[in-house]
Amino acid sequence: MRPFAAIFVPDELEDGLSDRAWLEAMLDAERALANAGALAGVVPPAAAEAIAEQCDADRFDVAELARQGRDAGNPVEPLVRALRERVGDEPGAYVHLGATSQDVLDTAAVLVARRACELVDLARVVDLCAALADEHRRTVMAARTLLQQAVPTTFGYKAAGWLVGVDEARERLAAVVLPAQLGGAAGTLAAVGDQGVELLRLYAAELELPEPVLPWHNRRTPFLDLAGALVTTATALGKIAGDVVLLAQTEVGEVAEAAGGASSTMPHKRNPVAAVLAKACVRHVHANVGVLYESHEHERAAGAWHAEWHALQTALAATGGAAAAVARSLDGLEVDRERMRANIAAETLSEAERVGIDAAQPDDYLGSVDAFIDRALKRCQTP
Amino acid sequence: MRPFAAIFVPDELEDGLSDRAWLEAMLDAERALANAGALAGVVPPAAAEAIAEQCDADRFDVAELARQGRDAGNPVEPLVRALRERVGDEPGAYVHLGATSQDVLDTAAVLVARRACELVDLARVVDLCAALADEHRRTVMAARTLLQQAVPTTFGYKAAGWLVGVDEARERLAAVVLPAQLGGAAGTLAAVGDQGVELLRLYAAELELPEPVLPWHNRRTPFLDLAGALVTTATALGKIAGDVVLLAQTEVGEVAEAAGGASSTMPHKRNPVAAVLAKACVRHVHANVGVLYESHEHERAAGAWHAEWHALQTALAATGGAAAAVARSLDGLEVDRERMRANIAAETLSEAERVGIDAAQPDDYLGSVDAFIDRALKRCQTP
Amino acid sequence: MRPFAAIFVPDELEDGLSDRAWLEAMLDAERALANAGALAGVVPPAAAEAIAEQCDADRFDVAELARQGRDAGNPVEPLVRALRERVGDEPGAYVHLGATSQDVLDTAAVLVARRACELVDLARVVDLCAALADEHRRTVMAARTLLQQAVPTTFGYKAAGWLVGVDEARERLAAVVLPAQLGGAAGTLAAVGDQGVELLRLYAAELELPEPVLPWHNRRTPFLDLAGALVTTATALGKIAGDVVLLAQTEVGEVAEAAGGASSTMPHKRNPVAAVLAKACVRHVHANVGVLYESHEHERAAGAWHAEWHALQTALAATGGAAAAVARSLDGLEVDRERMRANIAAETLSEAERVGIDAAQPDDYLGSVDAFIDRALKRCQTP
Amino acid sequence: MRPFAAIFVPDELEDGLSDRAWLEAMLDAERALANAGALAGVVPPAAAEAIAEQCDADRFDVAELARQGRDAGNPVEPLVRALRERVGDEPGAYVHLGATSQDVLDTAAVLVARRACELVDLARVVDLCAALADEHRRTVMAARTLLQQAVPTTFGYKAAGWLVGVDEARERLAAVVLPAQLGGAAGTLAAVGDQGVELLRLYAAELELPEPVLPWHNRRTPFLDLAGALVTTATALGKIAGDVVLLAQTEVGEVAEAAGGASSTMPHKRNPVAAVLAKACVRHVHANVGVLYESHEHERAAGAWHAEWHALQTALAATGGAAAAVARSLDGLEVDRERMRANIAAETLSEAERVGIDAAQPDDYLGSVDAFIDRALKRCQTP
Repeated sequence: MRPFAAIFVPDELEDGLSDRAWLEAMLDAERALANAGALAGVVPPAAAEAIAEQCDADRFDVAELARQGRDAGNPVEPLVRALRERVGDEPGAYVHLGATSQDVLDTAAVLVARRACELVDLARVVDLCAALADEHRRTVMAARTLLQQAVPTTFGYKAAGWLVGVDEARERLAAVVLPAQLGGAAGTLAAVGDQGVELLRLYAAELELPEPVLPWHNRRTPFLDLAGALVTTATALGKIAGDVVLLAQTEVGEVAEAAGGASSTMPHKRNPVAAVLAKACVRHVHANVGVLYESHEHERAAGAWHAEWHALQTALAATGGAAAAVARSLDGLEVDRERMRANIAAETLSEAERVGIDAAQPDDYLGSVDAFIDRALKRCQTP
Repeated sequence: MRPFAAIFVPDELEDGLSDRAWLEAMLDAERALANAGALAGVVPPAAAEAIAEQCDADRFDVAELARQGRDAGNPVEPLVRALRERVGDEPGAYVHLGATSQDVLDTAAVLVARRACELVDLARVVDLCAALADEHRRTVMAARTLLQQAVPTTFGYKAAGWLVGVDEARERLAAVVLPAQLGGAAGTLAAVGDQGVELLRLYAAELELPEPVLPWHNRRTPFLDLAGALVTTATALGKIAGDVVLLAQTEVGEVAEAAGGASSTMPHKRNPVAAVLAKACVRHVHANVGVLYESHEHERAAGAWHAEWHALQTALAATGGAAAAVARSLDGLEVDRERMRANIAAETLSEAERVGIDAAQPDDYLGSVDAFIDRALKRCQTP
Repeated sequence: MRPFAAIFVPDELEDGLSDRAWLEAMLDAERALANAGALAGVVPPAAAEAIAEQCDADRFDVAELARQGRDAGNPVEPLVRALRERVGDEPGAYVHLGATSQDVLDTAAVLVARRACELVDLARVVDLCAALADEHRRTVMAARTLLQQAVPTTFGYKAAGWLVGVDEARERLAAVVLPAQLGGAAGTLAAVGDQGVELLRLYAAELELPEPVLPWHNRRTPFLDLAGALVTTATALGKIAGDVVLLAQTEVGEVAEAAGGASSTMPHKRNPVAAVLAKACVRHVHANVGVLYESHEHERAAGAWHAEWHALQTALAATGGAAAAVARSLDGLEVDRERMRANIAAETLSEAERVGIDAAQPDDYLGSVDAFIDRALKRCQTP
Repeated sequence: MRPFAAIFVPDELEDGLSDRAWLEAMLDAERALANAGALAGVVPPAAAEAIAEQCDADRFDVAELARQGRDAGNPVEPLVRALRERVGDEPGAYVHLGATSQDVLDTAAVLVARRACELVDLARVVDLCAALADEHRRTVMAARTLLQQAVPTTFGYKAAGWLVGVDEARERLAAVVLPAQLGGAAGTLAAVGDQGVELLRLYAAELELPEPVLPWHNRRTPFLDLAGALVTTATALGKIAGDVVLLAQTEVGEVAEAAGGASSTMPHKRNPVAAVLAKACVRHVHANVGVLYESHEHERAAGAWHAEWHALQTALAATGGAAAAVARSLDGLEVDRERMRANIAAETLSEAERVGIDAAQPDDYLGSVDAFIDRALKRCQTP
């Protein structure tokens, strides 16, 4: 995310999504292909070794590859040329054997995405929400529907809802299957004769990636699954951020971020900056997944494939940025119990009474809050 | 979908998504609530019976309810008033007990969506694709990448890719969990004291719907899951439709829809109308799911909830429309084997030779096509 | 917008976007074509008269046309057939002369959209905002940035910002040029020999529509211009609605809608229902315009054209719905001056002081509020 | 656009959208503010001079500012601190006088966007289209509707359609008004007493930017106007790219890019790489403008503002990338007249005959093609 990436994206994630990281992943794919080829008997072991040795990102200039890639429409074609040159004539013929550019770039995208997903720190957010849910089980506050006070609830119950949302997102992300990609120009793996299925199996194994039932050059279910999980994640994080921003309003004042942000003109302000940045990130996730909603023509799409790279990267960066920002927002969040109680409007209380609740006995008028919090906590326990 | 709904949406699905269908589903929810209340001991059995008897769509005017609903911002408030009136004073007090408008409308949305999903006939598309994959295993054609001929493939292998895509979509749709909704104004079920959890359990059971871990008024994972499955479905269908349109081009001429569409000025034309309509539907799915990507404020969203109804309905209608259109497109699809073979350009063949393939021996130059088709067919077999 | 259209869309607009309205517009196009043909000398006057006489929506069943239109992929082909039948053999040959289905449907879309835009009542919103801006010039309230109180402003200045936004939207909408469409199958008007340019001129004149420089079957600038204007309109309306919802929060309480909405469970609540519905409508506008962002293939798009109809209709309905809802929200809006003043937090005032302002002398610490309000009012005066 | 920016975005444009370019633009805003303050009499001339001298991008580390900006949620707050430090105590008090962070960042965004728009080279595309339209007036080819051959047209007429589309886009882009931003924390310019309106005028004049009627912190019409123009531009470019890809299909073969792209596995292929990359860019424009469709809360949005930066930048980069790619695609485009004529199918010709056209006399069966091309060329002449 440019400009000012550091505002939105954690450094480690930004590195994990850099051009350098993509280059490394492409070289991982080429190396795995050579090794798998050797195991399948279509690449001489010495050639595989020579290739693997050259699959080192320090030996390539990714900016230059991108520049050269403009002509071919992707960075793999110049990378393969450069790799062949480095490997030398004879073993060079075995570089990229059986593969097409998309095999290498899709596999690289999978590797980059997998690593990026590991850097989206939802576990931290889950822990923070769980702690708030437990600590504030009985911290009474007004529930708000259409931003109007409704009946009482507790802050712990609100946090339990956040918790379940993020935990569901974590499940969705963990369930995404991103397989290796290998099919050759047409997905038939024709260049390796009848060794295709075996080569695919070995290649996936080399990369410790799942093996697809078919090559998926033009059937993007894996990335749609990822898109869905990122949407769910971003929306769950956006829920927390949105509630924090609303609760932190000057007139509500029920929470404040521990490190509330400074203003360039108003030093007294304590902006819920982390929550605000999270909300911005969420919008980028929602917008970029839409780029992935495209049916790919025939055996390789004329544009839809090329558009994925940036969309995937931005969606991953923004999801990770949102997670980090929400964690900052919740970490040390100041919860003002007195203000929560005091804010409850007279009508809200009388409504509580209307349905037979004695406001003096929280156990009664809070309905099933406790039971639901227990269910939420139980659901989210890491095994 | 207006205007001209019949062009895009099957009649049965259009009915299943009508205002009348929503009314019936809302009444199903009210009836289930009364019955569950009776079982939980918070509603007198006689009152429950009286309520259930009135929960009959013929007794209400949905157009009028919508008109009245403008003031409350939803149709449930006037429906509850009308239902109370019909039920009469005493049992009337038990109508809607413990619930809020969103409980009833969300549950109705779940019921409507569940029925609509059943009407999205992917099984038919799976069968048609499987038949094409098997019949055309060896029907050689040019693979096309960036719409340029690459190396040979077979039409059966192309259909196998369609098949896996639609089958994955079917799996995604089947895996969506849409639970009952019941939480009362704040999700605490406070109005029924400590009976909330039990009431939720009984209510879900009455409706034969899954029970949520917590009320989900403001945590829309179920609809995001549905959105993801609809996107995957639409994209898989759009893939088929897009390929059909490209293959049916005058200059390609490899397939033709059995009932190719007439033109108002050019009787000689045989437009791939069904595929074209499917592509239009797909765009509506992609656009409308985006409306669901919103974090809901506090205990009930101020607008994001209200926007869901139309978005869900359109996305469901368009998905079903796309499925029906693709089925029409593939049903009796004319596949011109000679044209497929003849279209393979000289360079494409020589490329085939370049990688050591004897064009006269399809078994060789088709690589792993057969094996992959077998894997696809095996994957998609209904148990 | 389904379900429950009446909640969101004014009846008159709903009628103006109905299938019946589309049918009338299609017949307007066919009538204009016959009349223009007569003037150009390519249609015998008697035939034109006979055709015009039959161009009466009462004589056709639009539901049946839609059903038949499934085969051709549009409703014009069956309409032309039905019209020819009604007109009879000889004059029937002159029905639709020179035109293609898209000519008639695009022209109908233009007519429907133009009428719908007239029903989007921005003038009312402008008047309401202007009145608020003037009346509340000196109604001091807290400005809020990132939802935190910043320095003082006035409610009139806030309303002046709303005013300019809606007035800019009104300008954008008024500036949209939606021309007639006529080009025949390929946009060449070949069927009328060298009379094409003249026929186009006469046809546009008959319809009182602008004449395009070229037929625009596959160059959708007019609808993109409309899309842009609808986005600007919806966003300006959403701004007002969003601010009203925030100001109406229980804890803020600075405004209340005159007809605040009832809740099915909480009679004490006074929900800002109109603003909430406006926010929902806005989301539909934003989502549906995206469907129009598509480049159309060759001389007629295979799907992108067909997707426009529903997207245009929904975007227009939702824009009109948002405008009507915002007008309801602002009409009689209760503005609580005391609460506004009282809500200003101590720090906010001291900030005001920090920059050299005497809080007792509003003229000073309100900066250029008055001058800006004057500029806004002047800009928005209808000539 | 990452990864592999160079594949998609021209170097000069990439530079114009870099963090460094944003920093320069922010410093331009601060310098203009100091100078305007001096002219308005609220900043001592010596202080303004001292500030202006320090407004030099070489003196700041933008990466470090972004890192520090995480806490404040924007890069302006640390920039102002750093600038004050450099300027020293006394004049430092006049740095940023009257302004808020958003004033500086919005103005910077305007400056960056304005420069980027100048780098979107539509003039080149207009020239290329105009040349094709003129040269190929009589180059007969099949028109294609729903990708089926319809009646004959000419390639020049197709190019004339492209031409008008891009020229309309150029007009839209040129008509966008991006004003300076200055309002202070609440848009009241209260910090400079009654000098606000004058300060705004002088500031805008310093920057050679239009003056807004009101500060527009929370009324984003300028960026919505830009968004609309970018959509129109991208869609017009996508139209050309899409048609080129379709015409370049192996089976159609009517055009070929001069520098058709190489494939990593299939040296014989001549991919229409530039057109493909343009199509990918277009998708990013369409997705990113959607991020700008948001109503901003109160006097500064809590997230929607922060999301604009990346969305604007990506939309601008992708629009410029699309324009450059389309220019590469059309520059030297090989047009195969014989193939165009030969591709016209028998039925298409007989259709031509059906409407009374003698295929041997192009003047007749091409209808108004010539007249329309003349209109298109005349419209697009630069004055």
